[in-house]
Amino acid sequence: MARRESAAAGPGSRALIVDLIRSSGPISRVELVKVTGLTQPTISNIVRRLIDDGVVRETGDTVATRGKPRTLLVINSRAAYGVGIHVGADALTCVVTDTRGGTVGRQLVAAPAQGGPASVVAALAALYDEVTDGLGLPPQSVAGMAVVGPGPVDVARGGFLAPPGLPEWAGLDLVQALTARLGVPVLVDSDAAAAVVGEFWGRQVSRERTFGCLYMNSGIGSGVVLDGALHRGASSNTGKIGHVAVVHDGEPCHCGSRGCLEQYAAPRVLVARARAAGSLADRLRIRPEDPDARAFDVLARAAVYGDQEARALLEESAALLAEGAVTLANLWDLDTLVLAGPGFAVAGSIYVSEIRRRLAERAFTRDVHGVRVDLSSNPRDAAAIGGAALVLQGSVAPGHGPQVAARA
Amino acid sequence: MARRESAAAGPGSRALIVDLIRSSGPISRVELVKVTGLTQPTISNIVRRLIDDGVVRETGDTVATRGKPRTLLVINSRAAYGVGIHVGADALTCVVTDTRGGTVGRQLVAAPAQGGPASVVAALAALYDEVTDGLGLPPQSVAGMAVVGPGPVDVARGGFLAPPGLPEWAGLDLVQALTARLGVPVLVDSDAAAAVVGEFWGRQVSRERTFGCLYMNSGIGSGVVLDGALHRGASSNTGKIGHVAVVHDGEPCHCGSRGCLEQYAAPRVLVARARAAGSLADRLRIRPEDPDARAFDVLARAAVYGDQEARALLEESAALLAEGAVTLANLWDLDTLVLAGPGFAVAGSIYVSEIRRRLAERAFTRDVHGVRVDLSSNPRDAAAIGGAALVLQGSVAPGHGPQVAARA
Repeated sequence: MARRESAAAGPGSRALIVDLIRSSGPISRVELVKVTGLTQPTISNIVRRLIDDGVVRETGDTVATRGKPRTLLVINSRAAYGVGIHVGADALTCVVTDTRGGTVGRQLVAAPAQGGPASVVAALAALYDEVTDGLGLPPQSVAGMAVVGPGPVDVARGGFLAPPGLPEWAGLDLVQALTARLGVPVLVDSDAAAAVVGEFWGRQVSRERTFGCLYMNSGIGSGVVLDGALHRGASSNTGKIGHVAVVHDGEPCHCGSRGCLEQYAAPRVLVARARAAGSLADRLRIRPEDPDARAFDVLARAAVYGDQEARALLEESAALLAEGAVTLANLWDLDTLVLAGPGFAVAGSIYVSEIRRRLAERAFTRDVHGVRVDLSSNPRDAAAIGGAALVLQGSVAPGHGPQVAARA
Repeated sequence: MARRESAAAGPGSRALIVDLIRSSGPISRVELVKVTGLTQPTISNIVRRLIDDGVVRETGDTVATRGKPRTLLVINSRAAYGVGIHVGADALTCVVTDTRGGTVGRQLVAAPAQGGPASVVAALAALYDEVTDGLGLPPQSVAGMAVVGPGPVDVARGGFLAPPGLPEWAGLDLVQALTARLGVPVLVDSDAAAAVVGEFWGRQVSRERTFGCLYMNSGIGSGVVLDGALHRGASSNTGKIGHVAVVHDGEPCHCGSRGCLEQYAAPRVLVARARAAGSLADRLRIRPEDPDARAFDVLARAAVYGDQEARALLEESAALLAEGAVTLANLWDLDTLVLAGPGFAVAGSIYVSEIRRRLAERAFTRDVHGVRVDLSSNPRDAAAIGGAALVLQGSVAPGHGPQVAARA
């Protein structure tokens, strides 16, 4: 069963070293010995193999010390490329990143609305081909592909169990079908898990942080990185903050529970309310046929530009999300929380300031330490970028990432 | 800053080996190599030192294989003793355990009600002396003492920040004062963190589990063990499920938030309600001067024996705790949850069945896997036993436990 990735155990030493070079590089072998507690010969062996594999390179610079000068190591950013596809209710976003998390390509297409499982697989494969061909990437430089979307996910089998609004995707063995079709490793994971890994990887965050991410698209999820590794729990379905009750025995939710945060604060709910209050939808020219995601962007823009009615809706949602953020902080004892996902793309500032305010007032540990709250630098693509990071983590550290699926 | 204990990193290899021998022993060195991925010489070195230190012993049995026969290793249960003191609002519970978690001594005294910091330290030291002397433990066999109680804790400084009902304990540097007085390593941690470590340690649970504990005394907390190590978060204040809102913008709580679970479901709240509804308190002979903990036991016993009014109060509390359990399961993706703490000592069965029912109906991952719910075999002493386990983990694996405090 897939679990929290153990970055530090024996077989994970390679992943640990890669992560330390990523977050603390340029760094010398001597410093790696000091930080990890692993022996000099172990570090030397692992680093030699990483250099042979093209994952790590020596900078050419040395640090003068009383002893032998120390050569510095960094990640070789063009060693490999990862492809991440984010599955949204009406669009597929594909990004390609290098091993330092820099985006080198991006494409957006409409999600296949009908045609059954075959058309879903065909659409994903076509998108992969188009983006990698367009960038002229040699096939051997592509580490693999991640397909990320709403949970629950079955990471071992490699599929989504019940993605809301995408009935054709439910239970599909995507990993098997796509691996056969593309000939590269493929993994499936949740959008929130991918986003937290991508934000952690891209921000050069120290592995000392207890690093959380609140993710909002059509639904609301979250993820956490502990000691530099994604917390996976029993089945890679952690962080379901959207399905934490905010109203005791409230409205029934598709997840089987009642009164879930998602039913009161998610973008589609606010859009439905704006539509029900006809005057607001009319004033903002939200048409009945507009997809929820686009209608929410319109609503969010109006809120940012001062429409009182739109602002009130967003602020109510922000207050509920802030309560959710307090829950995350109180259970995980976070020191950092990043907001990512298309739901924060337009009115992220409204959410950031409300969440900061609530955490400062209400987090259980506020007298011990603060919780830093940041907005993703690319909220819309965060999950796709994170998917690519999951692939690259797998390729630089065997035993993680795509291999999770392959092992099943 | 104290964090999630990294059982597996270089300096933690010793802790990892001890934990594997504890959970999987008797086990051979060859199997340890296979499970950890560490090299044969590394395993041999660590095991040799563990045997020298008396932590691990060879059973004398061997496993015949095609190659050399393999000697089996187990934990040496009498290598050291840990002392755990649980601080409750009106009582101190002290237990002594061996390295396998077996209780060898127990004592209960009234918590010092007045007299300032000096009397708090004197009471703890006297209890330690009385229990260890009474058992005739040679001083060098005592690995140290843990004082565990309600959070927030300052694990680095070694004290409680604001224990409800114990104003004299707030901000006291217990570790410094007690280490000086007793001459053994001392640590301070939260009751829920201690309880989850104690339950994990004592149940011989595999480190593969995502193992949570819901802890109820005067307040409600929780803890989680991931990959065999306590999840500490940024400041060792994780799992504050008692301070997750169950009523949006509800009653103000001492923690600074509003509508917290604790304010609607904790034993002292149910007792206050029983007292307010005078007839129930009268019928059960709950006197105004009875401490809340004792009054709750009376109430819980009446509920178990079928008093309708008492039962209704307990069931309301159980429903809220079940909602909290769903939150824990949904955020941590638990596969096991144990209920521990004095609050579950009498009517644990009412809570267990309601929590099982809700998790089966509402946990986000219920179609992927179930969550096993158990009652602690010793709910009242679980935190004290866990404190002793924290001490022993520290003594068998330097860099953990008491040293956390010493490093600050």
